[in-house]
Amino acid sequence: MDDVVGRVEVVGTGLIGGSIGLGLRTRGWHVTGNDADPVVAARALALGALDAVGEDPDASVVFVATPMSSVVEVAGGLLGRRHRRADLVVTDVAGVKTPIARGIVDPAFVGGHPMAGSEQAGVDGADGELFVGATWVLTPTAVTDADAYARLRAVLSSLGAEVVALSPQQHDALVAVVSHVPHLTAAALMNLADRMAEQHASLLRLAAGGFRDMTRVAAGAPDIWPDVCAENAVAIVATLDALVDDLGALRRRVAAADRTGLYEVLEHAAQARRSLPTAAARPERLTEVRVPVPDRPGVLAGITTLAGDLGVNIYDLEIAHSAEGDRGVLVIVVDADSVVALQEALAALGFRSTARQLA
Amino acid sequence: MDDVVGRVEVVGTGLIGGSIGLGLRTRGWHVTGNDADPVVAARALALGALDAVGEDPDASVVFVATPMSSVVEVAGGLLGRRHRRADLVVTDVAGVKTPIARGIVDPAFVGGHPMAGSEQAGVDGADGELFVGATWVLTPTAVTDADAYARLRAVLSSLGAEVVALSPQQHDALVAVVSHVPHLTAAALMNLADRMAEQHASLLRLAAGGFRDMTRVAAGAPDIWPDVCAENAVAIVATLDALVDDLGALRRRVAAADRTGLYEVLEHAAQARRSLPTAAARPERLTEVRVPVPDRPGVLAGITTLAGDLGVNIYDLEIAHSAEGDRGVLVIVVDADSVVALQEALAALGFRSTARQLA
Repeated sequence: MDDVVGRVEVVGTGLIGGSIGLGLRTRGWHVTGNDADPVVAARALALGALDAVGEDPDASVVFVATPMSSVVEVAGGLLGRRHRRADLVVTDVAGVKTPIARGIVDPAFVGGHPMAGSEQAGVDGADGELFVGATWVLTPTAVTDADAYARLRAVLSSLGAEVVALSPQQHDALVAVVSHVPHLTAAALMNLADRMAEQHASLLRLAAGGFRDMTRVAAGAPDIWPDVCAENAVAIVATLDALVDDLGALRRRVAAADRTGLYEVLEHAAQARRSLPTAAARPERLTEVRVPVPDRPGVLAGITTLAGDLGVNIYDLEIAHSAEGDRGVLVIVVDADSVVALQEALAALGFRSTARQLA
Repeated sequence: MDDVVGRVEVVGTGLIGGSIGLGLRTRGWHVTGNDADPVVAARALALGALDAVGEDPDASVVFVATPMSSVVEVAGGLLGRRHRRADLVVTDVAGVKTPIARGIVDPAFVGGHPMAGSEQAGVDGADGELFVGATWVLTPTAVTDADAYARLRAVLSSLGAEVVALSPQQHDALVAVVSHVPHLTAAALMNLADRMAEQHASLLRLAAGGFRDMTRVAAGAPDIWPDVCAENAVAIVATLDALVDDLGALRRRVAAADRTGLYEVLEHAAQARRSLPTAAARPERLTEVRVPVPDRPGVLAGITTLAGDLGVNIYDLEIAHSAEGDRGVLVIVVDADSVVALQEALAALGFRSTARQLA
C-alpha cells in the first residue's frame, strides 16, 4: 500500500467507471470497485480496471459512476459512512448536474461530467486513455470545500482531462446545446430518413458520409436519454425552440430562393465550425495568478466558475492556506494571454490578484 | 491510342472532375480535361488527373463536372458538336437533377450524381479511389438511349461505384432527406452553439465527439449550397417541415417527461442507424435476369428506376439487341435474394422475364 499514489473507489463499473479504473491503475492508484450487477464488477476486475471488488473505506476519492437516478442516494450513503476519511472527496459523472447539486449539499462532494464517451457501451468498451484531451466539467457550489476540489481536480488532470469549472445550472444549459439537442436532432433525422425509406428502398443507399456523421450518435443505446431529457427538460425545451426557430428562418430563405441569405448563414456556420477548439495543446507561456481569498468554500466556486465563464483554461490549481487558517491563497496557472481578462474580472468581484509569468 | 480503354473528356477539373480523371487514367483511359479557370486545369494536369488539357472530339464519354448552374449550357454545347461520335454519352455530377433533366432532353445525356465528396475542396483534394463503394445515382429519362446508359454505367462501375438508377424527381426528394436538410441542420446547430458561446466562452470546450460529428459537414465551403437550395427548394421545404414537426413532437415529450415515449423514439432511431447499409459487399449468390423489351429508350429508364425504387442492387447491366433491331433483351445481374420481388414488379408492368442463377 505504500507504493500506491492513493486509494480510490469506483461505484458503477461500466464504460466510464471502468475507464476511470483502468486509467488510475495505470497511474499508480489502488482501485476498488463495485457495481449493482456483480457480473459487471467481476468483468471490470478481469479486464484490469480494478484491483479488488468491494468497498474501500480508506479511499480518499470515490467516483459514483452509476445511472443518474441513483447518484444522490449512492453519494449520500458514501458521505454518511461512519468512518469517513477527513480528506474524502466524492464525485459523480452524470450528464445533468442541477438536480444532483440540489440533492447533495456536502463540502466533500463535487459534481462532475466527463465530456467523453464511446458508442461502445459497457465495461468492455472501457479505455484508460478515454479522457486524454477531453473536457471534464466540475460543478463546485457555494458549499464545496476548496481542498476537496483541488485534490479531485489533480486526479482528473492526471487522467489527461482538461478540467473546466461551471455552475451546475450553467453546465446544464450548455450541454443542452452541444449534446442533448444535437442527440435528439440526430434521432429525428434518422427516423425521418427511415420513414421515407419505407416507400423508397434506395434512400438509405444514398446516405453518404455527411448523413452517417450526423446520425452516428443516434446509434447509441438510448438507456440514459429518457433520464437526461427529464432532468434537463427546461434547457432542452428552450434549445429545441431556438433550433426550430432557426430552421424556420432557413426554410423561409430556401422558399424565397434567397441565395445571398443562405450563403451568409452557411458561411457563418463554416467559420464557426472551423474554429471549434480542439484538444488544446498546453500554451507556450503560462502565468501563475495568486489570489488571496478568505478561507471559505463559496469563494472557490466563484473564482473557478468565473474562469469557466470567461473561457479561461486553468492548467493547474492549488490552495495555500495561511497559518492562521482563516485566509488562503488560491494559486491558478493560466495561459499568459488570458491573464488580463481574468485579473480584471477578479477585480470586478473584489479580489486583488498578482500575476507571475512562469519560465 | 490503341493501348487505351477509351477516351474521356472531363469539363471542370475540381474535386470531382479531378477524381474522375485520376480514377479513369489509372484504369487505362485517356483523359482530356478543361476548366473555366486555366490554372485549375493546369493543376489537374500536374497532379496526373489528365493526359492533356483541352477538348477531345474523339471522347466517347464526357463528364460535365462544372457548377450546377452551367451544366445545361455546357452539356448542350457538347451534344451539339458538329462531329459528334455516334456512341457519345454525356453525363454530369450536379446535386439536383430535375432542372437539368428538364434542360437537356437528348438520348445521349444521362444525368448523374456521385454520392461522394470530401471536406477538402478543389482539385488538390482529388482522389482516384474516391468513388470506390460510393453510390452513384444515374437519372435516365424516357428519352435516354439504353446503350448510352449501359456504357456509362460500365465506366462508373469500373471506378468502384455502386450505380443506382432513380428518376430525377425521386433523386431530388431523397437527397433532400439524406443530404440537403441534414446539411442545413448541421449549420443551424453550429450557429446556435456559436451564438450561445458569445455569452459562455466555455461552451465550445464542452463540444465532444458527438457535436463534432454532427457539425462536420457545416465546415465545408458553402459555395454550391445556395444553388442546391434554390434548385431543390420544394423538396427541401417539405423535408424541413417534416423535421420541424418531429422536433416539435420530441419537445412535447421532453416537456412532459414522457420517458417511455422518448425511449421509443430513440430506440427506433438506434435500430435504424445500426441497420444503415454500408458499402455492400457483392453478394455470394447472383442471378441474371433477362427481360425481353421493345428497343425503345423509355423502357430502360422504367426498369432501372423500378429496381432503384425497390432497393434492388443491379450489379451488372447489358443490352442484347435482336438482329431485327426493334426488340432487345435487357440483361441485369442482381442479388439472388432480390429476384422474386423484381420479377413480380416487372410482371406488374407487363414485362416477362427469366432468371438464371450464376455460378
